[in-house]
Amino acid sequence: MKAVVFDGNVDCKEVPEPSRPGETVLSVQRAGICGTDLAIASGDYRVKTPLILGHELYGTVKKAPADRKDLLGKRAATEITVACGECYYCRAGMKSHCANGAALGIHRDGGFAEFVSTPADNIHLVPDAITDEEAVFIEPLAACVQLVKVGQIASGSTCAVVGPGRMGLLVLQLLKQTSPRLLVTLGRPGRKLEMARKMGVPAFEVGETDVALKMTDGAGFDNVVETTGTPGGLEQALRLVKPRGTLHLKSTHGLPVQLDVTKVVVDEIRVQGSRCGPFEEAIGLLAEGKVEVREMITDRFPLEKCGEAFGRARSSTSIKTIFEI
Amino acid sequence: MKAVVFDGNVDCKEVPEPSRPGETVLSVQRAGICGTDLAIASGDYRVKTPLILGHELYGTVKKAPADRKDLLGKRAATEITVACGECYYCRAGMKSHCANGAALGIHRDGGFAEFVSTPADNIHLVPDAITDEEAVFIEPLAACVQLVKVGQIASGSTCAVVGPGRMGLLVLQLLKQTSPRLLVTLGRPGRKLEMARKMGVPAFEVGETDVALKMTDGAGFDNVVETTGTPGGLEQALRLVKPRGTLHLKSTHGLPVQLDVTKVVVDEIRVQGSRCGPFEEAIGLLAEGKVEVREMITDRFPLEKCGEAFGRARSSTSIKTIFEI
Repeated sequence: MKAVVFDGNVDCKEVPEPSRPGETVLSVQRAGICGTDLAIASGDYRVKTPLILGHELYGTVKKAPADRKDLLGKRAATEITVACGECYYCRAGMKSHCANGAALGIHRDGGFAEFVSTPADNIHLVPDAITDEEAVFIEPLAACVQLVKVGQIASGSTCAVVGPGRMGLLVLQLLKQTSPRLLVTLGRPGRKLEMARKMGVPAFEVGETDVALKMTDGAGFDNVVETTGTPGGLEQALRLVKPRGTLHLKSTHGLPVQLDVTKVVVDEIRVQGSRCGPFEEAIGLLAEGKVEVREMITDRFPLEKCGEAFGRARSSTSIKTIFEI
Repeated sequence: MKAVVFDGNVDCKEVPEPSRPGETVLSVQRAGICGTDLAIASGDYRVKTPLILGHELYGTVKKAPADRKDLLGKRAATEITVACGECYYCRAGMKSHCANGAALGIHRDGGFAEFVSTPADNIHLVPDAITDEEAVFIEPLAACVQLVKVGQIASGSTCAVVGPGRMGLLVLQLLKQTSPRLLVTLGRPGRKLEMARKMGVPAFEVGETDVALKMTDGAGFDNVVETTGTPGGLEQALRLVKPRGTLHLKSTHGLPVQLDVTKVVVDEIRVQGSRCGPFEEAIGLLAEGKVEVREMITDRFPLEKCGEAFGRARSSTSIKTIFEI
């Protein structure tokens, strides 16, 4: 089969189809490039190679274990962590933190491929109300739902999203649903800021931090979400957080970042990381049209053009780049 | 009067007595050196100079405004933030985050001096059950109470304190009172680790992180408190935190620190800063003998020997260095 393999470089190669006993095989139809894929490709996020990249994917079930033949032919998305089910974390209901876990496209072969193997337990069926392209967003949207949950973002708070890109535009839509008192975004000028404005969110350029802060009467924001995917985003986000506020981290660029811990202590700030989230909630939001993703897809490529696809995904004029397989 | 003035160097100088209209003046009897004082003295924590250092202090009320003559002659400690009472934060009950606030010994003259000026509202009376020396610990102990509160440390959790020094040994005593399932500390070999052991806390050397982690069955700690006062402590503390656990920051060394934000995101870790706390609770704990501080005082100096005092406070064999005034 064809697959996008990272082995120092990112190349489309002919590789054997996956064959893992007891697992399900999806015939991948669409897959999205996210910041983690770019960080792996740049060498910043270290992985064992060779590795088939990709963890935001949608497909149909081609093979299923004997007791899950009901899945065959179904439209499906898959959670990314393959968990052992037996360790401390699995028993504590924290499957995505499994001590023996492996994430698709990060620790084991992923979904930028014609086929991907994943446990039947990780499969979530995709209803007809969600198109193939929209289904690519189930995984990242679930991660954004997790941000709101883990970060305990309450209604009536003041919120700022730094970096309204492929992740930030999803976060903005979810934050709108928390009925914030104020919601703004800051980013580089261009297509992404414009899309935020189209969503009705006041959007500022990075240099306008003080203007954004004035909207809070200078107090700072209760919640600031860092989704730039770059090390520089943290410092900027920290400037926006109010004392006793929360800085939500969402970037996994693999690079060390300088943090002003003295400010975190003096201002009693909470810095909260969050990762994978509840697929069923994300599916519900997409199926009911509560989150709009279609306009976010700016670029579509076949697997063979993976080099070009990764290049576009890094561009400030691309929002979401997906593979059509 | 004599005072320890920072002006690039730390020197004991003859300066005018403080005179701020409407404020109270304490005749300082004892004052403790803390990590922030050391960070200011080293130039890492930037302040406007010249500045009289010191914010952990105990004394008797020498002057009081007309409406607070009841304070005269009383034994007292003082909160460190002089707040405006009118800004957003003051109105929200967050006096220690006052937008116009100034902290004693950081933004305005502090208590390493014969006299210090402070608003009557910041004064807390010290009961006879607390000795002069113990009273020096009211301010830092209040800050540790704040850590437990803001950090929402629940009973039955697993806790590790990195750096059992002047702050860490207070934190350990407070954490013991939360009935933890497991409580350990890690630090450099020597007097501090020995004192932690005397308190009945399993104490490990920095290189024994894996041994400490084994006590949690490898899962990591629910709560890890970083009180080393050094930039290197954060990385070590982060290694000990469990996924979805909390890393509590307490060091204000003024230096930028490298943070592995990818780990914070992937492990969904909460990094929580906390600062000043409730004086009355700290006074209650000391008065009732629930926190033991006397053995922590390893060094006593007059103001004139401030150079030597700061040197001792930096030494690994000193726990708490205080001025006797």
